[in-house]
Amino acid sequence: MADARYDVVGIGNAIVDIIGHCDEAFLVEIGARKGSMSLVDAEEISRLYSKMGAAVEISGGSVANSIAGVASFGGNAAFIGTVANDEFGRIFTHDIRSIGVTFSAPPVLGAAPTSRSLILVTPDGERTMHTFLGISTSLGEKQLDLELIRNSAILYLEGYLFDEADAKRSFHLAVQTATRAGRKVALSLSDGFCVDRHRAEFLDLIRSGIDILFANESEIKSLYQTESFELAAESARNDIKLAVLTRSSKGSIILDEGRTVSISAEPISSVVDTTGAGDLYAAGFLFGYSQGMSLEVSGRLASLAASEIISHIGARPAVPLQQFARDQGIIF
Amino acid sequence: MADARYDVVGIGNAIVDIIGHCDEAFLVEIGARKGSMSLVDAEEISRLYSKMGAAVEISGGSVANSIAGVASFGGNAAFIGTVANDEFGRIFTHDIRSIGVTFSAPPVLGAAPTSRSLILVTPDGERTMHTFLGISTSLGEKQLDLELIRNSAILYLEGYLFDEADAKRSFHLAVQTATRAGRKVALSLSDGFCVDRHRAEFLDLIRSGIDILFANESEIKSLYQTESFELAAESARNDIKLAVLTRSSKGSIILDEGRTVSISAEPISSVVDTTGAGDLYAAGFLFGYSQGMSLEVSGRLASLAASEIISHIGARPAVPLQQFARDQGIIF
Repeated sequence: MADARYDVVGIGNAIVDIIGHCDEAFLVEIGARKGSMSLVDAEEISRLYSKMGAAVEISGGSVANSIAGVASFGGNAAFIGTVANDEFGRIFTHDIRSIGVTFSAPPVLGAAPTSRSLILVTPDGERTMHTFLGISTSLGEKQLDLELIRNSAILYLEGYLFDEADAKRSFHLAVQTATRAGRKVALSLSDGFCVDRHRAEFLDLIRSGIDILFANESEIKSLYQTESFELAAESARNDIKLAVLTRSSKGSIILDEGRTVSISAEPISSVVDTTGAGDLYAAGFLFGYSQGMSLEVSGRLASLAASEIISHIGARPAVPLQQFARDQGIIF
Repeated sequence: MADARYDVVGIGNAIVDIIGHCDEAFLVEIGARKGSMSLVDAEEISRLYSKMGAAVEISGGSVANSIAGVASFGGNAAFIGTVANDEFGRIFTHDIRSIGVTFSAPPVLGAAPTSRSLILVTPDGERTMHTFLGISTSLGEKQLDLELIRNSAILYLEGYLFDEADAKRSFHLAVQTATRAGRKVALSLSDGFCVDRHRAEFLDLIRSGIDILFANESEIKSLYQTESFELAAESARNDIKLAVLTRSSKGSIILDEGRTVSISAEPISSVVDTTGAGDLYAAGFLFGYSQGMSLEVSGRLASLAASEIISHIGARPAVPLQQFARDQGIIF
């Protein structure tokens, strides 16, 4: 896709993660569904923060993590999202730019603080999230750089954008802009409960405007309202050209119309924090795919990036993924 | 020391660390002395931040780290320091309280932002720091809770307080208050360049108002202006009742007047980030000592805490140290 200036442009919530450890009993105490992402207001996030233990602050956001991953692989990547003129906004902006991502939106003044997500990591490495969207709810159409979208081979969007009316309108305008420019559009379903909130619209999109779908097991089962992963996968195969379905330690499958490519999960000695596993899987796949690599190699890069991210705290790569993939002999 | 409400009260700069990785060439490029702590102004910290890579934000501060460690061992600990009414102030306050430390100073309004330290970690795990003191320079005498100091078995201070006139006055008032109440006073020399800035005053203090001195090899050599650790140690033995001298992987020695207790470093498979090693060593020692444990056991707790902190990013314990020490059979 040599005519595009960027390999991938992502649109998503610009979030700083506040990551701490807790035990299972704490999740019960605060009434949280393990593994889920719940939207909370300013008061509730303050209440939860005051109850949780010591934490680490680190840039996050689902599509933002993926875009950082694409850049870490050496891809040309850009991000569109909104931050406020506050410390968390400066942290987010610094971190995504310092990994080489083009992120040029000026901070939005006054409206609300930069988005943040409290992430509670249980001893099994699973993460449970409470997100305060803050300024991300202001991701309006005027924040979209349409020229940037037209200049990117792949547009990548997160399902979480559907949780806000303005962001949803921006989502549709971005898809329309990319499609008209002959670009590919990729979507992450974000999480099972997000699918639950927006099932009909997601199905519409998948059957019309989207080229590549990323979903994990619970998301794809939620989308097709079935307990059977196999049934859900067959439905996805019928609905979309390219479906990339992840199953944690069981690896992933890539459904390319009639063809199925199976990718095993990378072996890993210990899972520290699963935050960002799906995001970095998408990063590896999108990077490989944007470079014209095979589905098999793209899938291996995806698994490799996911294995790196779950070996430490936080959802941004701790090592340059390009070098990591070279060391593994996947790319040269 | 059953009549004291707190085992240890610490006074120090309340800092949020901004920790990122860099290579040796980057330190050369920015003209930094590896392993040192340099004080910088607001403009310089912005300039360095914009040049450094993606980072993690996590509560720090030398004595604050030690006090968090004492609490993590199960000790009654309190901290005195100043934060501003901003995000970094809220992060610092949340983290130190959530580990069980009493920290009751209200944020200081308006004067300057909460202190922060850019910490660059090289591949060998060594850290090089640039600190913007911000609001910490407002640690005046009125911030001191004298009743709290009188009610603490040990007062623990950092040499870094000498870098600001107000903080230095507070330091002296705190020492006087603790001494008059019959409490022990402990001092960390902080770093070799800090010793260089304040050698004469530190020597005065050590020969008069201080009961326990913590120093690493470069600090104690700088204090006595000698290249010989052995000579420096003998000078310390003559000047102070209890000197606790650390030597990284070579372990540490505790000089109790005529007696010398040698403590080996805990074996560790890989050093990720040495930030906080000395702070957590002090935490283990101060906890053991405040509980009336022997110098040998206090030293083992010290080494154990240091080994925990260098195995991960950040200078606050990632696991409860009380449980960790129990698992190792050092305490019951």
